[in-house]
Amino acid sequence: MSSSWAATVLTLFPDMFPGPLGHSLLGKALSNNLWSLEVRDIRDHGLGKHRTVDDTPSGGGPGMVMRADVAAAAIDAVERASRPLIYLSPRGLPLNQARVRALAAGPGAVLLCGRFEGLDQRVIEARRIEEVSLGDFVLAGGEIAAMALMEAAVRLIPGVLGDHASTAEESFTSGLLEYPHYTRPQDFEGRPVPDVLTGGNHLEIAKFRQQQSESLTRTRRPDLWSAHEKAPKPL
Amino acid sequence: MSSSWAATVLTLFPDMFPGPLGHSLLGKALSNNLWSLEVRDIRDHGLGKHRTVDDTPSGGGPGMVMRADVAAAAIDAVERASRPLIYLSPRGLPLNQARVRALAAGPGAVLLCGRFEGLDQRVIEARRIEEVSLGDFVLAGGEIAAMALMEAAVRLIPGVLGDHASTAEESFTSGLLEYPHYTRPQDFEGRPVPDVLTGGNHLEIAKFRQQQSESLTRTRRPDLWSAHEKAPKPL
Repeated sequence: MSSSWAATVLTLFPDMFPGPLGHSLLGKALSNNLWSLEVRDIRDHGLGKHRTVDDTPSGGGPGMVMRADVAAAAIDAVERASRPLIYLSPRGLPLNQARVRALAAGPGAVLLCGRFEGLDQRVIEARRIEEVSLGDFVLAGGEIAAMALMEAAVRLIPGVLGDHASTAEESFTSGLLEYPHYTRPQDFEGRPVPDVLTGGNHLEIAKFRQQQSESLTRTRRPDLWSAHEKAPKPL
Repeated sequence: MSSSWAATVLTLFPDMFPGPLGHSLLGKALSNNLWSLEVRDIRDHGLGKHRTVDDTPSGGGPGMVMRADVAAAAIDAVERASRPLIYLSPRGLPLNQARVRALAAGPGAVLLCGRFEGLDQRVIEARRIEEVSLGDFVLAGGEIAAMALMEAAVRLIPGVLGDHASTAEESFTSGLLEYPHYTRPQDFEGRPVPDVLTGGNHLEIAKFRQQQSESLTRTRRPDLWSAHEKAPKPL
């Protein structure tokens, strides 16, 4: 394990990686060793001639369940050090920017990707696996969710994005949705850039953006707004 | 546009696609024309010799903003038919399984992927773009979010997953998190499969799973539990 942010992914589809993470600024950061990506095939720990990794659910029902012993063998073969062990699952706690920041500030993560119906509950308990969900929807497997988690974390690593300041004012950092953006042309199909943004008064611009942020959050995300209202305010 | 579920992606990184969506059951379904994926490079609509797509934010601040005119040209070049036009953005409404089901039941989707600081607000308004967020975290661009949305929708298309029944009992369908799964071996590191699951009494198994679902949802996702409690119950 290098000293840079280290991701290890356990998957039945190792060829999916790095996939989109090999492009753009994250791909460049991967080449420059600002982070590392180790991909391991769970099937290497499969049982018997066919390297079986799953079996039918106890108690019946559709689909197949990933075996606890196979998942445990795959997990135990990783040099985890102090990295969190995360299983991507819609049953998990929803990922949020606070968790992403904590992950980005740490040594990396070991990400277990499920397929099929799910993972045997006993390995989740025995290996104290943290279950993390992207959101309240169901994917075909954990791979794209793992990519999203890695992208969210890695972009916060110093040096990965060109412009460091650009993560400071974005959505969720202040508990609000980000204000709307405008750029040239000044007139788009009869819609002008708001005057205040081109007036050069920085205090007015900051005030306008704050109002826009608050108004958008209040109407679109009353849940976030209510949490923001309850949060302690700086004096 | 074929008669199968049709996705069009507008991106600055067309080489990222199909990426993970070209593997496993979704990749097979793509080869079998159960869905289609058209990828278009926004840069084809860029301005001037350098095909510029972005400019500095009006009012100042870090990063670059995607121009409204360039985004509009890319959007207007798509044969959209009745497909929804979605911009993946943390400012959007969070994706949930109800929206995924509605998308899967429709003709497809046109997905606009941002990069940089964001997209000029005026094209969002002028083209009535639906803003959809994966969750309360920030990615480096919309591409992985678009992949997640497509995977969530396409897996619900009849014929894509091998076993149709496996989407009926999963998380969020009933407003609850899914119950835990177990499979062989009967004993894993001294942890047995719960007796009820191997007893063969289907009524008891259903009751056990329902209780597990409810208890997990109550402790892990009080927000979902509270919504579930308020929902009308079948008589």
